[in-house]
Amino acid sequence: MGSTSEERNSVLWPDLPKGPLSAYRERASFSSKELLLFWDGEDVLHFKKTIFKTLENDPVFARSNGTDLPLEKQRELNFLRCRQVFKYGFFRVEDLLQSPLKIPALISCLGMYDWSLANKCVLHIFVFGAAILNSKSEKHFKNLEKVYNMEIFGCFALTELSHGSNTKAMRTTAHYDPATQEFILHSPDFEAAKFWVGNLGKTATHAVVFAQLYMPDGQCHGLHSFLVQIRDPKTLLPMPGVMVGDIGKKLGQNGLDNGFAMFHKVRIPRHNLLDPTGNVTSKGTYNTPFKDVRQRFGASLGSLSSGRITIIGMCVTNLKLAVSIAVRFSATRCQFGPTDEEEIPVLEYPLQQWRLIPYLAAAYALDHFSKTLFLNLVELQNGSLKKEHSARQAELGREIHALASAGKPVASWTAQRGIQECREACGGHGYLAINRFGDLRNDNDPNCTYEGDNNVLLQQTSNYLLSLLEHQLQEGAPFTSPLKTVDFLEAYPEILGQKFKGSSKADWLDSAVPLAAYRWLVCYLLQESYQKFSQEKKSRGNDFEARNNSQVYYCRPLALVFLELIVAQRFHVYTHSSDVPLSLRNVLRKLSTLYGLWSLSQHMALLYQGGYISGDQAGRAMEDAILTLCVQLKDDAVALVDVIAPSDFVLGSPIGRADGELYKNLWAAVLQQDGVLERAAWWPEFTANKLAARGLKSQL
Amino acid sequence: MGSTSEERNSVLWPDLPKGPLSAYRERASFSSKELLLFWDGEDVLHFKKTIFKTLENDPVFARSNGTDLPLEKQRELNFLRCRQVFKYGFFRVEDLLQSPLKIPALISCLGMYDWSLANKCVLHIFVFGAAILNSKSEKHFKNLEKVYNMEIFGCFALTELSHGSNTKAMRTTAHYDPATQEFILHSPDFEAAKFWVGNLGKTATHAVVFAQLYMPDGQCHGLHSFLVQIRDPKTLLPMPGVMVGDIGKKLGQNGLDNGFAMFHKVRIPRHNLLDPTGNVTSKGTYNTPFKDVRQRFGASLGSLSSGRITIIGMCVTNLKLAVSIAVRFSATRCQFGPTDEEEIPVLEYPLQQWRLIPYLAAAYALDHFSKTLFLNLVELQNGSLKKEHSARQAELGREIHALASAGKPVASWTAQRGIQECREACGGHGYLAINRFGDLRNDNDPNCTYEGDNNVLLQQTSNYLLSLLEHQLQEGAPFTSPLKTVDFLEAYPEILGQKFKGSSKADWLDSAVPLAAYRWLVCYLLQESYQKFSQEKKSRGNDFEARNNSQVYYCRPLALVFLELIVAQRFHVYTHSSDVPLSLRNVLRKLSTLYGLWSLSQHMALLYQGGYISGDQAGRAMEDAILTLCVQLKDDAVALVDVIAPSDFVLGSPIGRADGELYKNLWAAVLQQDGVLERAAWWPEFTANKLAARGLKSQL
Repeated sequence: MGSTSEERNSVLWPDLPKGPLSAYRERASFSSKELLLFWDGEDVLHFKKTIFKTLENDPVFARSNGTDLPLEKQRELNFLRCRQVFKYGFFRVEDLLQSPLKIPALISCLGMYDWSLANKCVLHIFVFGAAILNSKSEKHFKNLEKVYNMEIFGCFALTELSHGSNTKAMRTTAHYDPATQEFILHSPDFEAAKFWVGNLGKTATHAVVFAQLYMPDGQCHGLHSFLVQIRDPKTLLPMPGVMVGDIGKKLGQNGLDNGFAMFHKVRIPRHNLLDPTGNVTSKGTYNTPFKDVRQRFGASLGSLSSGRITIIGMCVTNLKLAVSIAVRFSATRCQFGPTDEEEIPVLEYPLQQWRLIPYLAAAYALDHFSKTLFLNLVELQNGSLKKEHSARQAELGREIHALASAGKPVASWTAQRGIQECREACGGHGYLAINRFGDLRNDNDPNCTYEGDNNVLLQQTSNYLLSLLEHQLQEGAPFTSPLKTVDFLEAYPEILGQKFKGSSKADWLDSAVPLAAYRWLVCYLLQESYQKFSQEKKSRGNDFEARNNSQVYYCRPLALVFLELIVAQRFHVYTHSSDVPLSLRNVLRKLSTLYGLWSLSQHMALLYQGGYISGDQAGRAMEDAILTLCVQLKDDAVALVDVIAPSDFVLGSPIGRADGELYKNLWAAVLQQDGVLERAAWWPEFTANKLAARGLKSQL
Repeated sequence: MGSTSEERNSVLWPDLPKGPLSAYRERASFSSKELLLFWDGEDVLHFKKTIFKTLENDPVFARSNGTDLPLEKQRELNFLRCRQVFKYGFFRVEDLLQSPLKIPALISCLGMYDWSLANKCVLHIFVFGAAILNSKSEKHFKNLEKVYNMEIFGCFALTELSHGSNTKAMRTTAHYDPATQEFILHSPDFEAAKFWVGNLGKTATHAVVFAQLYMPDGQCHGLHSFLVQIRDPKTLLPMPGVMVGDIGKKLGQNGLDNGFAMFHKVRIPRHNLLDPTGNVTSKGTYNTPFKDVRQRFGASLGSLSSGRITIIGMCVTNLKLAVSIAVRFSATRCQFGPTDEEEIPVLEYPLQQWRLIPYLAAAYALDHFSKTLFLNLVELQNGSLKKEHSARQAELGREIHALASAGKPVASWTAQRGIQECREACGGHGYLAINRFGDLRNDNDPNCTYEGDNNVLLQQTSNYLLSLLEHQLQEGAPFTSPLKTVDFLEAYPEILGQKFKGSSKADWLDSAVPLAAYRWLVCYLLQESYQKFSQEKKSRGNDFEARNNSQVYYCRPLALVFLELIVAQRFHVYTHSSDVPLSLRNVLRKLSTLYGLWSLSQHMALLYQGGYISGDQAGRAMEDAILTLCVQLKDDAVALVDVIAPSDFVLGSPIGRADGELYKNLWAAVLQQDGVLERAAWWPEFTANKLAARGLKSQL
């Protein structure tokens, strides 16, 4: 690279401050600037830096460290920030479409700052806006402009108080009245209230509401989506017949107003039926291109992959933030040492390395997976826009659905566990709210639940794999898929016969080795799950019970190991491609091997049980390999974190600042908190109301 | 039982309300009343019920569901409640001493209500008060009365900003000035500020402060504890030279005011040296019965077991609360079913059973462990009071220290994971703050850190076991301990030669089977850890590195499996004793077997690796056994929860109420929240400040 490019780099990424972290930075085996540019690409990197700077320079986004904001204030601030984000034009559609990776980058940048903000924007634009766009009704395109300039504010109302996972069982109704050409939206009782809807609590003026469509002949055509006005945009008062409220404080993301709504015979015009999968003529005839309710319903909810893929990116972002704080803390916090006089950074302890560095590797591996899966989704959506109805397009949809449905559980659980480990690895200081682990844990948590409970979603992926096996067994269909994630199964009988033959650490120190083990694991669990399901079906006589009885220890781990294989494999292929600069190969391949081994090590029992490995040497050698990689990466850890951490302002954690001045930053932040040195306002309660000494003396 | 006893029972435990949970209650294999009386004993049960009723009847304790209290208000309320608790005389010393199990029961009851309250009381009475009592200085006994009637309020100041685990490295100093017979307390800089001290933020008037004791000759005698006045009890203003403040918002327990303090040459009288392990004459001569600093220091911190054992009880309490909410929710929440029309409670799904019922078993097993370990501690403390200096007393101290040091990690991690699993098992509704999982997760979290970071503490236990092996190898000393927890190691060579011989589910369905496996595991890991340590010592040449390099995969799991063995073993012995009524044996033994197997199943890889089990049958059979027990216990789960759950008021979770009216309770609670139906106060921001349409049109 020439000097102009170097100049640009220095603008993109000013030198990190000197301080206690410098020693680790100097020991790093690679240039973090080089990796940063390689990892993000200059275009996205520039976009991210612009967002970070914009937020930092605008007082609306001032960090409220230590101020204890009431719920109402959190929501107000979040709304004002959301509006500001739109004013800054970060969501400019043509920009985002030109460079699609800017979409997850934008969500990630806003989420790094605050997930309430990111989700408020995403729900309004990408969920509500997309539902209108997908309706393909030009009547509603005028609404899009109102969405972009926030004249109206949207939400997506599917979940009800008593139904979440079982979407088909939703009970809100929409009866068509041909006399007025209207639908009558109605909630039969409060158990059918729409519930948990983000943006509905205080802000939304409009909702995409899912309801069972009834025609005048009394026939129900199943769940359809309708555009319903909730509040008057001039006053934010509810529309007649709509009872709308805020569900209250959640464990996290409290800047976002989740709400509920009940409809009392609310009339909406016929063309407010948004669902592109069915329509109603003015006279009350229902038309759909789909043959049965089930198929139509599948198509209507088919776009759920994009939500899940977005969530995968959110989880990766949270993992990056947590690991960044914990690694920087561990590199500056000293405790104990070889002598009573000398203390060493806790990052020097193998136990601390083992607790943190695999999560650092996971952040990189999952980040790569998240980006590539997003690009797969873009390919799928481009096909849809071109109205491609090829078999490949349908297969691609199914494959992406399977990857997203297990990807969200793997990413959200890895992040949730990683955040907890990082919190604990920072000891008491990790428990102080200003250091941000509380927000990360609380804000990441719903990723395990929304857009489908993790355990329920995993069944989508195992069903996909089982149906491929079924087709193969029944019809001899080959194992193949557009992204080739299942093609290796073609060799499953041979793979099942493989064994790990190594016995030393060196035999594990190659990221192809865990991949081979993972492929065996998938084949093993696929076979076992199929047998279990078949046997249960024979003895129980129905699919429902058979499926329920083959989840634990069979289908559930099948979905998990399949997805972990894909994550590890994509990262392995990437780090072994010739695109990777020579100077970065070593560190990236170590991360790839560590992620593969560490992730695989959760399944050691299965590897032994099924006979893929045997003897105590093989297992010990793998453990040695993991610890060796941790030691080898510990001097790179700070530089690796410099690549994935946002600016100090956005990271918002005194113990995680880039200058590494742990105690100075923490002490300064503590002293900046409200009323820190003031005596309690309720001090007279202490001094005036002594316990009656008489009654108490007898206790002594 | 006669009718009078029945009458008493009905007072102690009124019939549970009829409702959606009745079906499960009717299917239970045992009487929950009978188990409740057997489990707690009538005396403790009566005490608990009294506390629950007292709190419910006093408006100071009114639940603030849905009100969003500022930090200051939370602290005020918590102080007022703490005072009220003392007024009610629950801490009446003679009562508690007569029936020591009332102490953990009291802490648990207050914690079930709110951990900020329990900890505020415990820190003041049991930690601060005990430090004064243990000083054995009659001069200070007058302070005890002031403690009980809250004329003064106490805290325990050990941790500093830059030092926690490494207590020896604390930097606060206490110089003795013979001229005035005073100590001069001083913080050299803010890194030496006392930090994280509970009650210090806003309330404490006095602190037990740990500082390095310097005599006029310049010699340092190491860390000693001093009584230091922090604030004027009349005004709650800080004393001259003391800079005291509140460290601010934490992830949880925000009713408790954690604080910091720096001392600027603060003078305190000579007799305020509290430490019973060393004293200073008026002329400035230092006396201690201990030979060296290290030994004295060990004795001075030796009472840490009681803190850790208290925390084990806290973790068990949290696990009980979480499991109670999740089981009741799962028994009433219906989702999907064999047909589209019929939905079944999610507790009927084997996956949900497997997620929750093992934690229910763990709550029982750990509760029993917690109580028995507390009684062991009482025995130890009684020995101390009688000034027993026998070898047995010293050995008992070491053994209890080893059990407490691994018990806290096992209990706190089990609770933390259990709470997370329960939260997720309740889906979105688990994420609503009023349902309490957020508080449970946030309030349990510090149990992983305080009184010693879990990972650091585990080393205490593995060191204990390794030193026993060392003694055996070097001197042929027998493996034996006062509580006999290590006596089985006497047979370790034979145990190492054992193998699991079964192959069917039935071979695992006996709680003695996991115990045998656990004993093998302890022997295996003890041997491996010893070898690893010896080999590392040889190659590194020093203990420090050798120890650090043998933690992961060796000493760490050694400590964990040893402790899990003791938990499983104590519960096994208990459930097999003749004291257990016939009608309760079946269910308790199933819980015992399930806990043992489920807990053991985390270590399957090691069992295979070391050759204790082999082949795929053995592992599958164990999984089958776990699932079978879950199915067998699912109809007992609601009744088992009725035994460990507090009153609805104390549980404070609409989805976990005993009547099982999930949606009615949740809906009612949501509607009771502040301003739930009101439009946002900031509505004009929405309506008045439209984005400039001009600038935005270009984006479309």
